[in-house]
Parts: sequence; C-alpha cells; structure tokens
Amino acid sequence: MSFADRLARAVHQTGTPLVVGIDPWPDRLPGRRAGDDRTAVAALARAFGLAVVGAAAGQVPAVKPQFAFFEALGPAGMQALADVCAAARQAGLLVIGDAKRGDIGTTAAAYAAATLSPDAPFPCDALTVSPFLGPDSLAPFLTVAEAHERGLFVLLRTSNEGSGRWQAPVVRDLAAWIDNTNAARGEYGPVGAVVGATHPDEGAALRASMPHTWFLVPGFGAQGGSAADARRMLRPDGLGALINASRSATFPNGHDAGFESGPERWIRARIAAVREELRG
Amino acid sequence: MSFADRLARAVHQTGTPLVVGIDPWPDRLPGRRAGDDRTAVAALARAFGLAVVGAAAGQVPAVKPQFAFFEALGPAGMQALADVCAAARQAGLLVIGDAKRGDIGTTAAAYAAATLSPDAPFPCDALTVSPFLGPDSLAPFLTVAEAHERGLFVLLRTSNEGSGRWQAPVVRDLAAWIDNTNAARGEYGPVGAVVGATHPDEGAALRASMPHTWFLVPGFGAQGGSAADARRMLRPDGLGALINASRSATFPNGHDAGFESGPERWIRARIAAVREELRG
Repeated sequence: MSFADRLARAVHQTGTPLVVGIDPWPDRLPGRRAGDDRTAVAALARAFGLAVVGAAAGQVPAVKPQFAFFEALGPAGMQALADVCAAARQAGLLVIGDAKRGDIGTTAAAYAAATLSPDAPFPCDALTVSPFLGPDSLAPFLTVAEAHERGLFVLLRTSNEGSGRWQAPVVRDLAAWIDNTNAARGEYGPVGAVVGATHPDEGAALRASMPHTWFLVPGFGAQGGSAADARRMLRPDGLGALINASRSATFPNGHDAGFESGPERWIRARIAAVREELRG
Repeated sequence: MSFADRLARAVHQTGTPLVVGIDPWPDRLPGRRAGDDRTAVAALARAFGLAVVGAAAGQVPAVKPQFAFFEALGPAGMQALADVCAAARQAGLLVIGDAKRGDIGTTAAAYAAATLSPDAPFPCDALTVSPFLGPDSLAPFLTVAEAHERGLFVLLRTSNEGSGRWQAPVVRDLAAWIDNTNAARGEYGPVGAVVGATHPDEGAALRASMPHTWFLVPGFGAQGGSAADARRMLRPDGLGALINASRSATFPNGHDAGFESGPERWIRARIAAVREELRG
C-alpha cells in the first residue's frame, strides 16, 4: 500500500490528524540529574522516546522523531533514535523522521538508505527533506521512497518568523513541482509538503492549489498556531494534513511530579487533551 | 584565533587551497567483501577515513567528512565518523563537517552542539548548513560557531545541474546577507559560502561581490569543474576559497591493487597529484 494510502488509513483508524513529535529535550528528560554524561542522557532520551511511543500508540496515526536531539548525544544517541524508530513502527505508528536532509546524487541516496530502505538503521515511513539544492537533489530520495512505499515531506513554507525571506521567492514554483510530481501518481502522491500553522492564510491558499499533496503542519501549540489555524490545512473530508505537536504534547510547563514518576501515563493523558483541543 | 584566521594560516602553511573530502563509498572501501554486514562496513569506513586523514595531514589545510555515508551505516557508522573527526583534528587538520544541516531554534542549536561545541561528539571546525529556513534558522549555528571559534559554510550556489531552480531567485539576497554578516566581523568572517566550480562565471562574480567571505568550492574533479574554473574562486593572494576534491582524490578508477594493499600510501600520492593539478 502506498505511503499516501497508509496515511489516510491511519488517520481514519485513529480519528485524528494529530502527529506527536519526539523531541528529547535534554534538560527536561524525566530522571535527568546534574552531572549526567552523554551516555546517561542518551539512555534517558531512549526511555523518553519509548514512553512517547507507548503513549501515542493507537491514539494518533504517527510520531515524528527530531533527529537533531539524538545526534547531539553522539553515537549512543543515534542508537537511541534507531531503537525509538523501530519501536514506533512495531507499535503500528507511522514514523516521520524529522531530519530535514538534503544533498545530491549518491550522497542523497545514502541519506535515503539510512531512513527509507527496508533495512534502514533508522527506519522511518517518511522523511522531511530540504529542496534548496534543486529538483535533481530530491530525485534520489523519491526513488528510494517509492521503491519501498515510503514518503517525503519537502520543506515549503516553514513555521518560523524568518521563513519567508528565502522561501517566498520560490514557494509558488516549488508547490507546483511538488503537486505535479504527485498528480501523476494518484489522488495523493508520496511527496508531502511542510507548511507551518503560523501562516494560515497562505497555508489555506496552498491547500487549495495542491490537491494531490499531504501537508505536515508544524507550529501548532508551542509555536503559536491555533487549532483553528491548523485545521485550515485539512480538506473538508478531514484528510490531506497531519498536524504536529511536539513539546506541547509531551512535556509539562515546569516541574510536574506525575510526569517525573510516570511519563508514559502523563504523556498519554496530555496527547488525549491535545487531540480534543485540535478537534475544536 | 578566529576560524577565518585559522583557515588562512592553514592555507599558507600547506601552500594549497585543496580540501580532501572523506566519502566512505560503501562498495569501494578497501577490504570490502560481499556479505559484509553494516558493522563490518562501518569498521572499513573508519579505517578508510583514518587512512585519508593520515594521507592528508600536512599536505592540505582541511578534510571534509560527508556525514551521509556514515549515517547510512547506523550508530556504528556514526561512531566511525566521531573517530575520524577526532583523529583529523588531532593530526592538525581543520575538519569541515559536510552535513548540510538546517533547522530552527533549539533544534538548530542541537545540530550545532553536535559538531561545533567544545565537547561535540562529532568535532568539526566548520559545518555546511542550508539557509532555506531563513536567517533566523542560521542564527543558532552562528552563535555556537562564534563562541568556539568555528565556522559555517552556507549553501549558496551548489555544483549540481538543477541547483539554479530554487537558488537563483535568492542568490543575490543570500550572498549579501552572508557578506554583510561577515563584514561586521573583520576582513573575513565566520560565515562561508558553498559555490560550485561548475558555475565559474557566476562564481567569479560572487567572488567579487563577497570580499569578506570564504568559499568552499565543490565540483572540481569528479563533477566536471576544471582546475582553472576552481581557481577563479580564489582571490589574487591565493586566499578566500577552499577547493574540494573527494572521490577523485581518494579512490582509483576501478580496481587498483596498490589502493587495496596500502590505501594510505596510495591516497597520499593521489592527493599530491591533485594538488599539482590544482596549481595548474
């Protein structure tokens, strides 16, 4: 089954477009003590990631591990990332690797092999990629993704304040390239687009102009996009967009004894609340 | 000493702007056998990387490990990358991490911490970064880099055929942003630019318009840029650009018994030849 069809099925089955980001924020991990070395923090990051997976399974269609926080913990952190990705897929969650990779030729193919191949060390169902190097830089990612029924989410209009400066001049052509690439492949194709909830009017216009493209929508929650803003990225049938919440769905504001003593249970309740908030 | 000053000193001391890329191309690694598992290939990638480091030390100012090939080998590959980066710095080489990272806020800071902080697990003197997310996405990288006398190389005009499509509309503004950021900081600043040797006329024009910016020039050798093309990115004093050769400086064309039996010696001779070719 194609990645787009698997996404639609997962959204139907769980009844929500909510994706839960896995950002193992080093200073806030349950059990963190002053003086922990990198290996100790990597073990806590792994435990946190597995708690999010346990809390998310069955409640949401997908999780989105943020590669940077694992990479900062060195090889032990990358082993934790590998374990969290594998556990999430085992639990029936789709895994969107948030790595924002981008390169050319065999180098791009190596990044794709790392995440989207059947024996990938960091197994993902989809990968976020940067288009800045051009359409030929996306081709190796797409080749690997399609061969194995995986997908991509191409950065198109990100949620941060300065995103317009070097995205606005190309957004129309890039959006057309993405949707045309998908159009040849069915109702929805394998090339998604990252469109921030912090640009709701522009996002709604992009939604209308890209009927064959799944959106991945960051910026809901901690970054200031509202549930109503985020819902504008959905089609009327409730498909076509995944809406991400990371820290707002997985960390308390400040110290919380329940989070420290039982993070999986605490996160499960928090995810349920964010699901309701998103329903509006 | 600032990264820009360290670069200038290293180019003076070695008498060449040549940078040697470390691309552990899995099928071509010395000692590779059919059926090797990922851990075995990671060990070969580490040995290859250390051979390039040994061959490059004293001959060139810097090496450029390509993160993708290590990432494709999983956590063991990332350990190999960590070992190669540390060995290169130990040998007196500057290390340019070719990771093309790009993200926002604390996520960007995590990528910077992974490579540019004093206790980085993958210690580099500079990192390649993608500007597509906007100037605010580059700020956390620059903060970490400057705090520790490291540098960045921002993708500006890459060597691949399709690079113009989403780079050309922003290249002038991005070039100005890079050079203005540097201008406030001295003759050369910490923010370099990646400009492919495959666009020699455009590169020469960028060179003239960016007097405060070091260039990192891929595309010489395997990708078709000539030595004369690459030299156009240098200032008359021989500074201002690092010119990279990766596979053309580290792998034979096809099977080569000398490469298989003594890769470090073979690569040392090959680097010497590429140095001469670049001198013209």
